[in-house]
Amino acid sequence: MRMALLDDDRLFPVEKSVRAMARDLYEGIRDLPIISPHGHTDPSWFALNENFPDPARLFVQPDHYVFRMFCSQGIDLDTLGVPRADGTEVEQDPRKIWRIFAENFYLLRGTPSDMWLKHAFQEVFGLDTPLTADTADEIYDHIDACLKRDDFKPRALFERFNIEAISTTEPALDDLKYHRMIAESGWGGRVISAYRPDTIVDPDFEGFTDNILKLGELTGEDTASYTGYLNAHRARRAYFKEVGRVTSSDHGHPTARTENLDPAQAAELFQTVLSGRATADERDAFRGQMLTEMAKMSLDDGLVLQIHAGAHRNHSAAMLAKFGRDKGFDVPARTDFTNNLKPLLDAVGMEPNLTVILFMLDETTQSRELAPLAGVYPALKLGPPWWFYDSPEGMKRFRENTTETAGFYNTVGFNDDTRAFCSIPARHDVARRVDAAFLANLVATGRLGMDEAHEVARDLAYDLVKKAYKL
Amino acid sequence: MRMALLDDDRLFPVEKSVRAMARDLYEGIRDLPIISPHGHTDPSWFALNENFPDPARLFVQPDHYVFRMFCSQGIDLDTLGVPRADGTEVEQDPRKIWRIFAENFYLLRGTPSDMWLKHAFQEVFGLDTPLTADTADEIYDHIDACLKRDDFKPRALFERFNIEAISTTEPALDDLKYHRMIAESGWGGRVISAYRPDTIVDPDFEGFTDNILKLGELTGEDTASYTGYLNAHRARRAYFKEVGRVTSSDHGHPTARTENLDPAQAAELFQTVLSGRATADERDAFRGQMLTEMAKMSLDDGLVLQIHAGAHRNHSAAMLAKFGRDKGFDVPARTDFTNNLKPLLDAVGMEPNLTVILFMLDETTQSRELAPLAGVYPALKLGPPWWFYDSPEGMKRFRENTTETAGFYNTVGFNDDTRAFCSIPARHDVARRVDAAFLANLVATGRLGMDEAHEVARDLAYDLVKKAYKL
Amino acid sequence: MRMALLDDDRLFPVEKSVRAMARDLYEGIRDLPIISPHGHTDPSWFALNENFPDPARLFVQPDHYVFRMFCSQGIDLDTLGVPRADGTEVEQDPRKIWRIFAENFYLLRGTPSDMWLKHAFQEVFGLDTPLTADTADEIYDHIDACLKRDDFKPRALFERFNIEAISTTEPALDDLKYHRMIAESGWGGRVISAYRPDTIVDPDFEGFTDNILKLGELTGEDTASYTGYLNAHRARRAYFKEVGRVTSSDHGHPTARTENLDPAQAAELFQTVLSGRATADERDAFRGQMLTEMAKMSLDDGLVLQIHAGAHRNHSAAMLAKFGRDKGFDVPARTDFTNNLKPLLDAVGMEPNLTVILFMLDETTQSRELAPLAGVYPALKLGPPWWFYDSPEGMKRFRENTTETAGFYNTVGFNDDTRAFCSIPARHDVARRVDAAFLANLVATGRLGMDEAHEVARDLAYDLVKKAYKL
Repeated sequence: MRMALLDDDRLFPVEKSVRAMARDLYEGIRDLPIISPHGHTDPSWFALNENFPDPARLFVQPDHYVFRMFCSQGIDLDTLGVPRADGTEVEQDPRKIWRIFAENFYLLRGTPSDMWLKHAFQEVFGLDTPLTADTADEIYDHIDACLKRDDFKPRALFERFNIEAISTTEPALDDLKYHRMIAESGWGGRVISAYRPDTIVDPDFEGFTDNILKLGELTGEDTASYTGYLNAHRARRAYFKEVGRVTSSDHGHPTARTENLDPAQAAELFQTVLSGRATADERDAFRGQMLTEMAKMSLDDGLVLQIHAGAHRNHSAAMLAKFGRDKGFDVPARTDFTNNLKPLLDAVGMEPNLTVILFMLDETTQSRELAPLAGVYPALKLGPPWWFYDSPEGMKRFRENTTETAGFYNTVGFNDDTRAFCSIPARHDVARRVDAAFLANLVATGRLGMDEAHEVARDLAYDLVKKAYKL
Repeated sequence: MRMALLDDDRLFPVEKSVRAMARDLYEGIRDLPIISPHGHTDPSWFALNENFPDPARLFVQPDHYVFRMFCSQGIDLDTLGVPRADGTEVEQDPRKIWRIFAENFYLLRGTPSDMWLKHAFQEVFGLDTPLTADTADEIYDHIDACLKRDDFKPRALFERFNIEAISTTEPALDDLKYHRMIAESGWGGRVISAYRPDTIVDPDFEGFTDNILKLGELTGEDTASYTGYLNAHRARRAYFKEVGRVTSSDHGHPTARTENLDPAQAAELFQTVLSGRATADERDAFRGQMLTEMAKMSLDDGLVLQIHAGAHRNHSAAMLAKFGRDKGFDVPARTDFTNNLKPLLDAVGMEPNLTVILFMLDETTQSRELAPLAGVYPALKLGPPWWFYDSPEGMKRFRENTTETAGFYNTVGFNDDTRAFCSIPARHDVARRVDAAFLANLVATGRLGMDEAHEVARDLAYDLVKKAYKL
Repeated sequence: MRMALLDDDRLFPVEKSVRAMARDLYEGIRDLPIISPHGHTDPSWFALNENFPDPARLFVQPDHYVFRMFCSQGIDLDTLGVPRADGTEVEQDPRKIWRIFAENFYLLRGTPSDMWLKHAFQEVFGLDTPLTADTADEIYDHIDACLKRDDFKPRALFERFNIEAISTTEPALDDLKYHRMIAESGWGGRVISAYRPDTIVDPDFEGFTDNILKLGELTGEDTASYTGYLNAHRARRAYFKEVGRVTSSDHGHPTARTENLDPAQAAELFQTVLSGRATADERDAFRGQMLTEMAKMSLDDGLVLQIHAGAHRNHSAAMLAKFGRDKGFDVPARTDFTNNLKPLLDAVGMEPNLTVILFMLDETTQSRELAPLAGVYPALKLGPPWWFYDSPEGMKRFRENTTETAGFYNTVGFNDDTRAFCSIPARHDVARRVDAAFLANLVATGRLGMDEAHEVARDLAYDLVKKAYKL
């Protein structure tokens, strides 16, 4: 009985006739291949194709959605096996971790994690028993047994998930070893990288100056000069294109600030930043200048430029010290796009062959700034809801807030943006259902024809993402 | 078959019993006359009553909703015949323009423009064929033939649209020639103007100082002194009342800042601004001071004060240079009202005989600032959703965000705010439908009686706007 | 016929099957006792247990929701009997006030006040006649007659309302005389206080310096020194715990700013503030420092810390002068939490035994800042929608905006936060209905099981508030 964990009509409108329309639209797109143009899966999985170790390491440790919620309810991250930055020993027994996970699974009620996990349990592992303290061991044993099988190895799951292409993300100094292995392996799965230069673009990144030195060594450019530094970027972008088969760069900035300084000013700012004496404002200006430089490089090499703006990263000083980066303590902050993007847009916004994809964590900018900007500048497109908004309500509000001004064709489909491999089909399924529901409502209220809705549904699930990311 | 383009039940709730209530409420207001108290139709249409030239010049060139969306998808505005500021020749053939419009009409899916245009095609021109590349010529020919007829001349359409009163908007230095012609023509249509002094109030307006000189010449006042300048405003307001039969002034400011300086300070600020050496902050302060001065003049002459705040006008420097103002490159920015309006409200906010109507482009202020302010200050009223929010979702959110705090009676009905003449019935129809749907939901959830809902529906469609704008 | 004023299915979803689920969930929680952990009822009511004087003094004068709406429509507050700060005589005749109230009751259409008042009329006073100009006298007489009876005295209503515990709020210098009387009276009703130190923490409060002196006299501490000042707080908190049986402190600040200065800096800031020469920024910093100090005291004495941030209090200078504080002229302003709370959170945010409850008037922070913060810091919980958002739409949006990131278990049930005693059952009823509707929608869209929904409904109505407030 597959109905135990998931409702077949989940996320569809409740009124019968509209639900039927949504179901019809969803049926038309449910089985389309997955294009995952931006995410954080580990390329070594696909390069080495080793079995995933155990249920806890697959579902709990890498999933900051899960352990941030558990942390908020006073559960010590050590007991979940989240590794400490200083190597202090934490819980190692996956079964113990799993039991805590099971006992506290109810905390996820009403969150997208609840649905993603149930989807993986049911659709990937064939489970139909709810996860509770009582069923923890039984479900652990079942998943653990599956993970030992060949048909649960990364490449097998990749194929079973019907992934047509997936992008990982690597820092600019990465050697892309695993991407090279994948390419050379003869395996047909399309796993590409994305060029993420935060470590050499963001002066607030730990080790920034050293990273610039390493960049020089890697590329043979004199990165002590701005010209050399920019050339080194060009070299790394070319390397990423060749080895990582990248089609995009990606930039995670605290604000959406951009600058378009004249070359002499930019070079001077670079020297100030390198000296370590730059003010906070100068460091922010430098990040902003680099977005415009990257956009200009994109005009030459064709990479799509992704901007992820608005996260206050590692909000808790104590948790950063204890666990390191990316452990769920990112918190969004108010973000301004209208003024901040103007320098970049004045420079390249009217270029029809450039694609800049914006991601944000401040919903208030969707109807006020992002839709009006993307609804007029040819170079701008709106990325799908990100991080805390990658959820049924978040996706619904995104469409409600942006469609009337930016339409559908200034958006670029869905990103799962995840390191939780088994959640990928679940996340795309949620996006497809929410879009089907949104379109069904438009049809039911006389705002779209059913034939148009079928076309748009396919565009949102498949065609727009391929086109925008050149995949 | 009139069903081809529009669904009779469009925009109503989907649940059958609630839909029936919405339809009932809508039936009660559908045929009420249109009061259009703020907009940008061209008074020469009604003065000269000439035929509209062709379908492209009626539907494409004046509609920045349309060409901003087309621009965002890389379509060159020259090919749409949008005139260049420097007179460079652009596409002149209306049929070619119309074909581009038809081929790309699908880009408007999900936007209010789609619905407005279909409404005009069906209800004004009697079409029942969807506009596509294949039908472009047939539809062009049909509309073109209509436009040559007497019953499609401006005054005939005005009457057919059941417009009881419409307000255009003219700059303060305008001679209102066409309004005088209309008044003298003996035609019964009520076409009035609104006093829009941006060119003589906003130091950032091109030609500001020259405009002040012209203001002096026109009025015989010494506009080099603040007293003379204010008197000149009084004179122009009187002129607009006499010739343009205005009942309102209108002010488009980048922020909602107001000031209430003492007369000596205000006079000094005026001199600084006139000198051309004012800082950005001083220029903003001057605009803010003028809002309060205008409000004080309204206490004397009874004009309703409209404030349109929060647009970053002409965001793209390149497009401003190429095409001039008002070509769809306005982008909203975050706006603050709570602090910014305090000087004006401390001066005149408790005056029960003053009406200040607020329009904004920052939805986040609706529930947080605007509804609480309008829900307590007698002089303040909330204008309807503006520009990017003049849409089904925008209107729905406006009611959801403001009604619980400001009620219905601190709002002022609908403004179409358009220069697209044929969209006027469509826009009012959308507003009436969305309000009927909102009220039906209140009734269905026990928040309003059906008899009350009928009263409120009429208030929102007709009575409140007449009262607020003294029409 | 009890149906006259209220619909039994009010606020439930309109689709039949979902409405049935919501009704089922609501039935399970409708009769749970009321826990009112934060509010502004007058403890003298319960101490003295005297009859309420008349319908106008019960329903009109204390309810700023009502008179702010009336004021916005130009009705003079004098005619409603709202007392003047300088003692100028205002309308005294309760029947005249009641008639104005009745004639203008329609202004409240679509607002929560409409529903709260109808609930009280029907459920507390057994009325089934709508309030209009025509029925004003009849309804006045009926309520007036009730109010003379013993079973309409405060304690009788308290019991009839099924209140398990209620918290009033007293300033830190209050002697809690009425709380002592209640405790000594032998009456079993649980009426507790909350420690509200704004008058001795906020340098912008009138009489701040005098209040600090009085604090010293009351506690025997030297409040001219920071150490003595902090000790005096400790003493008052202990007094409030003993006499007022408080479990929480409460802090109403214009911003959410917090500081965690080192002791020497904090002491110096205190002296600056005491001197009366502190800048606006220093005064704000001091308030922020005191939030962290209070949180640290909470670690010792166990009081729950409530922060109410974001109100521009007494927005109208004229109305403040005429009527004094808290007369409905509070207006929300934009509020930032992500950066502002960081000092407090770095100090105590990871403490699992501390509870800090956040209330805000800026909805935009719900999904962007508050849910992400409460969804990861163990000490943080989200208070229910406050002031202008304590309404069906406000509550619905709160759940939609926060649940996906913070879940249900980082929220703390409902606060009525009112001084309008008869509205308490109505307000809790609205909250229970809105939550039942929200949960029913989750069930109907496959996001929650019905058994889980029943559990969560009870948690939201009863268990979470008891636990969070230690009641």
